[in-house]
Amino acid sequence: MISPVSRSKCFGGVQGVYSHESREAACVMRFGVFLPPQAQSRAVPVLYWLSGLTCTEENFIVKAGAQRVAAELGLAIVVPDTSPRGLKIPGEDETYDFGTGAGFYVDATQPPWSRGYRMYSYVTEELPRLVESEFPVDRRRVGILGHSMGGHGALTVALKNPGYFRSVSAFAPISSAMHSPWGEKALAGYLGPDRASWREYDAAALVEERGWRGPPLLVDQGSDDPFLESQLRPQLLQEACTRAGVALDLRLQQGYDHSYFFIATFIEEHLRFHARNLERAD
Amino acid sequence: MISPVSRSKCFGGVQGVYSHESREAACVMRFGVFLPPQAQSRAVPVLYWLSGLTCTEENFIVKAGAQRVAAELGLAIVVPDTSPRGLKIPGEDETYDFGTGAGFYVDATQPPWSRGYRMYSYVTEELPRLVESEFPVDRRRVGILGHSMGGHGALTVALKNPGYFRSVSAFAPISSAMHSPWGEKALAGYLGPDRASWREYDAAALVEERGWRGPPLLVDQGSDDPFLESQLRPQLLQEACTRAGVALDLRLQQGYDHSYFFIATFIEEHLRFHARNLERAD
Repeated sequence: MISPVSRSKCFGGVQGVYSHESREAACVMRFGVFLPPQAQSRAVPVLYWLSGLTCTEENFIVKAGAQRVAAELGLAIVVPDTSPRGLKIPGEDETYDFGTGAGFYVDATQPPWSRGYRMYSYVTEELPRLVESEFPVDRRRVGILGHSMGGHGALTVALKNPGYFRSVSAFAPISSAMHSPWGEKALAGYLGPDRASWREYDAAALVEERGWRGPPLLVDQGSDDPFLESQLRPQLLQEACTRAGVALDLRLQQGYDHSYFFIATFIEEHLRFHARNLERAD
Repeated sequence: MISPVSRSKCFGGVQGVYSHESREAACVMRFGVFLPPQAQSRAVPVLYWLSGLTCTEENFIVKAGAQRVAAELGLAIVVPDTSPRGLKIPGEDETYDFGTGAGFYVDATQPPWSRGYRMYSYVTEELPRLVESEFPVDRRRVGILGHSMGGHGALTVALKNPGYFRSVSAFAPISSAMHSPWGEKALAGYLGPDRASWREYDAAALVEERGWRGPPLLVDQGSDDPFLESQLRPQLLQEACTRAGVALDLRLQQGYDHSYFFIATFIEEHLRFHARNLERAD
């Protein structure tokens, strides 16, 4: 059961925001869905966008300018929130990089976070089932992409669910949560101190452990991103891909930073990349 | 003297936000400037975007998706704020449609608003002089456009300054401030009760009194805009243009509302319209 929050015509399609009672997140969650005009007559391929720290479902919807290209290519785009909201867990609003707005797309095992901070199951199970039941999307043609924390999330989610997510790309992703201050804080808080348990949610580790038989991974990274060396460390992803024999198209975009101005500049190329990959999916 | 607030590479150009001590607005004002890549080697045509009620300089910059097309066409885009900020005039923050965020692009004559609420002089004199001195723009190729309150502002500003603003368009503009509840409240507050004085800031009245020898006016209006009949009333602009013999391309866009999703959908056509017009300017 979903409730419409807003619906606006956009490039001939409809940009909607919806809410629903989420079992995994233990609260009312919002998500965005862009349906291209082609969805009026057939099921369309669908992309999931995972956002970065501090974001809600709104940032990508209003800032990325993705609807123009999605309308042309006939792609739906689903945009979840980045964490549960309003669980009233002590400390959830104290810092920008843990708790609210910082779910990191993991299933927390540590109380009190294990109640509701189950964003991995939310974006891989609950939300896709809901979207498939409520919108005309083709469940055989699903891709995923994201930014920063959400770029890392897109990589981990795809690597663990290659049968469902057939195509993956990222903007300025954290390459290895275990080797990033943001990620270490999040994984320690949600999963506890045993670092071995963190590998299940670490993009570089998963590349090495599970490989990837889908189309090459596409990653764009701005050269002027202030988090490049401290948090994102694209060389860790590159090294993992090399060791695992996974094809990676890592592009260092000169002069771009970590903002949605960077995302907006290259989102068209990412959407065309996914559309091509999903066209070939069987 | 301007201070950079932020600068991000975007579509090969630079989206900046700057601040300066404004004489007209009697406060520190922010404005956005997008410089396309072409501005590295020559002075480029420049468009001014005037925003609607409640907006700052940020809304258009992050939501309209204009930079992609501006970069292709070699257009700079300047985006002022919609009012002075922080003047601490009693009542300036009480309602969304008067005071802060609602300057209406007029020079107030009524105290206490006459101090600072001088957005007409700000956008027609102070800001253009500043932009010309600080950025590589061609002062012979200047256009203006805007949304809602800012669409009305763009029309009035161009009609009164046809030698400077050579090309004008609007999204869902108020057609006649004197015949709109938003406009009546603003003009009464800023200019006082004498309605005769309002005509100097009324788009439909100015069309009839001054005419327009520039290229046809381009206006897009969404058919599902909730303010269409109550505030915007495009037929008043159409009737004024007919009476004055002014060419108006008024397009009713089926199903679109008042949001930036509407603006994003048609901004490309507006930028191409202005680029064509300014190419022909002498």
